[in-house]
Amino acid sequence: MEFTVNQVAEMLGGEVKGNGDEIIKMLAKIQDAKKGQISFLSNPKYEQFIYTTNATAVIVKKDFVARKEVPSTLILVDDPYSSFTRLLEEYHKLISFQKTGVEQPSFMAENSTIGKAFYRGAFSYIGNNVTIGDNVKIYPHAYIGDNVIIGDNTIIHSGVKIYADTRIGNHCVIHSGTVIGSAGFGFAPQEDGSYKTIPQLGSVIIEDNVAIGGNTVIDCATLFGDATIIRKGVKLDNLIQIAHNVEVGQNTVIAAQSGISGSTKVGESCLLAGQVGVAGHLVIANNTGLGAQSGVSKSIKEPGQRLMGSPAYDVSDYFKAYAVFKKLPDINHRLRDLEIKLQRLQDASLSVD
Amino acid sequence: MEFTVNQVAEMLGGEVKGNGDEIIKMLAKIQDAKKGQISFLSNPKYEQFIYTTNATAVIVKKDFVARKEVPSTLILVDDPYSSFTRLLEEYHKLISFQKTGVEQPSFMAENSTIGKAFYRGAFSYIGNNVTIGDNVKIYPHAYIGDNVIIGDNTIIHSGVKIYADTRIGNHCVIHSGTVIGSAGFGFAPQEDGSYKTIPQLGSVIIEDNVAIGGNTVIDCATLFGDATIIRKGVKLDNLIQIAHNVEVGQNTVIAAQSGISGSTKVGESCLLAGQVGVAGHLVIANNTGLGAQSGVSKSIKEPGQRLMGSPAYDVSDYFKAYAVFKKLPDINHRLRDLEIKLQRLQDASLSVD
Amino acid sequence: MEFTVNQVAEMLGGEVKGNGDEIIKMLAKIQDAKKGQISFLSNPKYEQFIYTTNATAVIVKKDFVARKEVPSTLILVDDPYSSFTRLLEEYHKLISFQKTGVEQPSFMAENSTIGKAFYRGAFSYIGNNVTIGDNVKIYPHAYIGDNVIIGDNTIIHSGVKIYADTRIGNHCVIHSGTVIGSAGFGFAPQEDGSYKTIPQLGSVIIEDNVAIGGNTVIDCATLFGDATIIRKGVKLDNLIQIAHNVEVGQNTVIAAQSGISGSTKVGESCLLAGQVGVAGHLVIANNTGLGAQSGVSKSIKEPGQRLMGSPAYDVSDYFKAYAVFKKLPDINHRLRDLEIKLQRLQDASLSVD
Repeated sequence: MEFTVNQVAEMLGGEVKGNGDEIIKMLAKIQDAKKGQISFLSNPKYEQFIYTTNATAVIVKKDFVARKEVPSTLILVDDPYSSFTRLLEEYHKLISFQKTGVEQPSFMAENSTIGKAFYRGAFSYIGNNVTIGDNVKIYPHAYIGDNVIIGDNTIIHSGVKIYADTRIGNHCVIHSGTVIGSAGFGFAPQEDGSYKTIPQLGSVIIEDNVAIGGNTVIDCATLFGDATIIRKGVKLDNLIQIAHNVEVGQNTVIAAQSGISGSTKVGESCLLAGQVGVAGHLVIANNTGLGAQSGVSKSIKEPGQRLMGSPAYDVSDYFKAYAVFKKLPDINHRLRDLEIKLQRLQDASLSVD
Repeated sequence: MEFTVNQVAEMLGGEVKGNGDEIIKMLAKIQDAKKGQISFLSNPKYEQFIYTTNATAVIVKKDFVARKEVPSTLILVDDPYSSFTRLLEEYHKLISFQKTGVEQPSFMAENSTIGKAFYRGAFSYIGNNVTIGDNVKIYPHAYIGDNVIIGDNTIIHSGVKIYADTRIGNHCVIHSGTVIGSAGFGFAPQEDGSYKTIPQLGSVIIEDNVAIGGNTVIDCATLFGDATIIRKGVKLDNLIQIAHNVEVGQNTVIAAQSGISGSTKVGESCLLAGQVGVAGHLVIANNTGLGAQSGVSKSIKEPGQRLMGSPAYDVSDYFKAYAVFKKLPDINHRLRDLEIKLQRLQDASLSVD
Repeated sequence: MEFTVNQVAEMLGGEVKGNGDEIIKMLAKIQDAKKGQISFLSNPKYEQFIYTTNATAVIVKKDFVARKEVPSTLILVDDPYSSFTRLLEEYHKLISFQKTGVEQPSFMAENSTIGKAFYRGAFSYIGNNVTIGDNVKIYPHAYIGDNVIIGDNTIIHSGVKIYADTRIGNHCVIHSGTVIGSAGFGFAPQEDGSYKTIPQLGSVIIEDNVAIGGNTVIDCATLFGDATIIRKGVKLDNLIQIAHNVEVGQNTVIAAQSGISGSTKVGESCLLAGQVGVAGHLVIANNTGLGAQSGVSKSIKEPGQRLMGSPAYDVSDYFKAYAVFKKLPDINHRLRDLEIKLQRLQDASLSVD
């Protein structure tokens, strides 16, 4: 990346105050930025740094009024944070889409196809009858099983393992080590105490604009025709467990190390914090928020609730109860004390009678 | 798969009612099945679907009495669910055992051996002095370290990493991304506050009929001759932690994201739900059931208990206590109220005296 | 390994009592040791075994006084446990550093360099502009992205995935399946309810003497110039989540399945047990101990505390409160009982008045 301040301002629809011909090569935080870098000021508590920063340019809000001299060129915009985010994106596209072509050795079955502008890293594996769209990056050591379908502009990072029959949409990103389509955890108890494996023959469907972190596991559905489904816009963090036949609704966000048990349907626009566990065969209403380490054992029917605890219930009630929990030893003593005093009063009352 | 209804019925030892010459190509749920597919009716609450299904054939209980006309051919058996499961298995064998031979490039040291009817995927790695039985499938990117021994009919999925000296039995399935034999977490504190790594020189033994999910980690034992042991028939889900020197007893089932700390011995036929944690150096009795997110900090000596909580204790007592936990703010108020009332009574009583 | 007892004693600076010419081939526990093996006696409760062991030699404390005849040759040292640990280390070096050279096929970009005495396993991948020190082992299926720097004497196990721009120090060990440098979990909510991915452009720095278990994930920092930092001497177990911009202080130890959320700074010499969760943007003081399954939602300012619970607070207070928690149903009954009795007393008191 190498642009003039004027070029950046034009891209952002902003107004330049200062020397627009200076060169920008990188993005950085205002307190760390060096010459040749661009930064932004959004949160007023960082205002102090704008008077000392070495940044060549700083993106600020249109109505920003400097209280001292500012050494950098300014770009005035409506929303500095989102403008900066846009620059980050553009930069990221520049660097992440630079990989193209095939590195050897790599493996692709003859009856499989991949669109234009692809990258297939060394040691990547593409099985039989696979269909892959345009602008797709398959990093080294990725495994794409038979009959998989992948849309356009999707990135499969190094070491991702995608079992046969999985379908993945457009504009998805899947990070290293993630496993999609492994057998669900289904076993039928036998009379001798052993378990027989129930073959898992369903698949996984990942819709468009889904992001999945590293070392997450998504199991396939049990029966033919069924699928574990991750709806469009879902964001899954690292080390998440999604069991067989689960459906995660549109735009739901799940933080690291959470797990959803088999056949549970999580609604749209839910927000699950880290290390949450949800039991199987439940329905979680839209817009549900679950606090870190919560455990959900019953369906949540009313949308928009914020829950906490194991089992989880209203978060503010949980914290109120937990505050008293901490005082339980004291409560126990107070109760014992009351019992003694009351006994004395009763005794006294009897003797009065 | 392509069979007549008569052929399927013969395999299941069932009786055909209807046209036995029709062709079956696939299995499906009764509410979803299409022409050419076979389904089953076991749970009475699905009975409605048998009158409307498009399935070519439906497996039903011998004594099933239709209340309306049934469009499908029926196969009458003793136990429709287990018959259907058997069909699933047969189908699964047909598809999962179709991979054979070697894909190139792959790596196998000259002093290693593999039995007959094997599959070695591209980029699979087999180190020195490895012994592998018959009908074993080693998927792409699997890593088999030096001196590993693997029995017959075992499936090692893509990207599984098996460290040197591990032993794996017959009829095992290990899903993608799972790591077996990594160094246990052992460090000796030094005077300067740093830690020295204690070399981990033991191994891992996986007995017969063990199933392990994706991205699980099983550490090796610390000393020579010692092994972390997964006994026959054990089923481990995804993202599970099994620390050094752990032993998991026969037919025990552990759900996703649970962890067993070092040197703990889990009994036979235990059932651990998801996200359970068990501390180190404990003994867990046979037939123990642990609820989701439980934490176990002491040995469990009496077999057959059902426990919950962190630390875990009797599950029904836990739920009773948790029900009162939710009312703690109210209990706190009631207690304060009692204290005030009692004080008043005491004061009154004193003034009476 | 094949040494005489005299050679081992010389290495340990110990004194031989018995036949120093016997041959040692392996190390073992005192209760299991066979002829040709060496063991140690440190904990007095194992003393019984020294009178029956088949070990050729046993390392004991200088002042050890046998109460019966001892069949093995003794090596007298100041600290038997640390002497034995040293032997383990020497043995481990012998076996783990035996791999050298390049196995084919493997991939290394032309503009990358690796020092002397290296091992590059088959199917290992080294991207552009990578710099790797001396005595480094890169096992099969390891992925080293562009611009990565790795110090001397570091071991990267099979299937480790290291994203571009990561820096790793000297004497580190990273176990199979671990992912370093994946994108942090950052998304900006949009007006239509969807989320826009915030590009993650920072990196990860792993300092010297760091050990990382299997299938752990460490995300990169969000902005250029920023890094998620794992300080020297840190030990991370398996399946751990380290989010973007986290810093883990020197000599801190984190057990399996714990997670640290974005931008949190964990102090030095902390000890986090298994399945702990720490929220984002917190500061955890030095020498903090967190019990298993704890959840931390506020910064911990005072060093040296031991905490437990979710949210976590003083561990001994937690256990006292939990002991009362178990009695909550009883407490509820006692409270109800008091209310009734008090009401009766009040009624009586009124009727007396």
